Amino acid sequence: MQSPQALLRNGDNPSPSAQHRLPTPRFHSTVAEQNLPRFNSLILVFRLASFSFSLAAFVFMLTNTRGSDSPHWDDYDTFRFVLAANAIVMIYSLFEMGASVWEISRGATLLPEFLQVWFDFGHDQVFAYLLISASSAGTSLARTLKEMDTCSDSKAFCLQSDVAIVLGYAAFLFLGLTSLLSGFRVVCFIIHGSCFHM
Amino acid sequence: MQSPQALLRNGDNPSPSAQHRLPTPRFHSTVAEQNLPRFNSLILVFRLASFSFSLAAFVFMLTNTRGSDSPHWDDYDTFRFVLAANAIVMIYSLFEMGASVWEISRGATLLPEFLQVWFDFGHDQVFAYLLISASSAGTSLARTLKEMDTCSDSKAFCLQSDVAIVLGYAAFLFLGLTSLLSGFRVVCFIIHGSCFHM
Repeated sequence: MQSPQALLRNGDNPSPSAQHRLPTPRFHSTVAEQNLPRFNSLILVFRLASFSFSLAAFVFMLTNTRGSDSPHWDDYDTFRFVLAANAIVMIYSLFEMGASVWEISRGATLLPEFLQVWFDFGHDQVFAYLLISASSAGTSLARTLKEMDTCSDSKAFCLQSDVAIVLGYAAFLFLGLTSLLSGFRVVCFIIHGSCFHM
Repeated sequence: MQSPQALLRNGDNPSPSAQHRLPTPRFHSTVAEQNLPRFNSLILVFRLASFSFSLAAFVFMLTNTRGSDSPHWDDYDTFRFVLAANAIVMIYSLFEMGASVWEISRGATLLPEFLQVWFDFGHDQVFAYLLISASSAGTSLARTLKEMDTCSDSKAFCLQSDVAIVLGYAAFLFLGLTSLLSGFRVVCFIIHGSCFHM
């Protein structure tokens, strides 16, 4: 078991509340140490799923063009929004996957832990809102296009748009779940002063 | 200062962690007791704002019809979705305002505290996603209508739709803020076993 000095996170001084909790029972500490890698692995899996689905949505939307006679995703503001939102989530998820791998392999956060847990939670929340917003707007436009002549003339374009939007919803689902888990990490940090060394 | 028996929430038995934390310093308890009414009042104000904006959005969308020659909100699935989402948030906010007033006046939650804090946070999250989703879908349709002849023929219809959608965004903004505060109540409950008797 680590010494009290080793319990300090990332070289920080212990807060009064953290000092108050230093003599934590060994059982609690052992259980936490056993569960933390699983919890971080679950976050990594969810981030991987979110990345994969947003990447797929991005590619499906970007390649949704079939010559000059057919409509192009770039003709519609809403589809540009869908593409941009999925691109943002894709890049963010890639960064967060790197941060997760770093945490699992080194047992410490990439940024200072206070910053990391709030950064993750804040961005998960905002990007989840962004992605559900883009996907819903895309759904609305896709429905409108179906009611017009566009989809009867260009079935493949509409089908591929639908697939990209559904993939965006899937990415949102996993990002929303990750947001709950990163919220739990914030709670853990507030309670224990660190989720890595309890 | 209250006796240890009075610290139990709503007649529940104390959890082992709560028992462990019973001898909380008087200073902490006094600060918490002073800040709690302000915090609950802030939640009430945000809920009132969310209710008012969603009610206004609902009314603006419902009354958006000008005879048989003009388009009707009911002709568009997306506008029906906007109306339904604002109606749900309006009813939910009304219920939660009642619950907030109860809490402020009686110093205890309407439902058992464990259930109340999770109910509030869960519903705030889901309904915030629902409302941003509906508002974004509405925005997309409104933009499409502007690009077609609909808005040149029925300017008042489009303007009123826009107003309803913007009001929906305002309701979402306050619901999202409330969601953060109710998340903080969950944290408070997890740490202290109760946010009312610390």
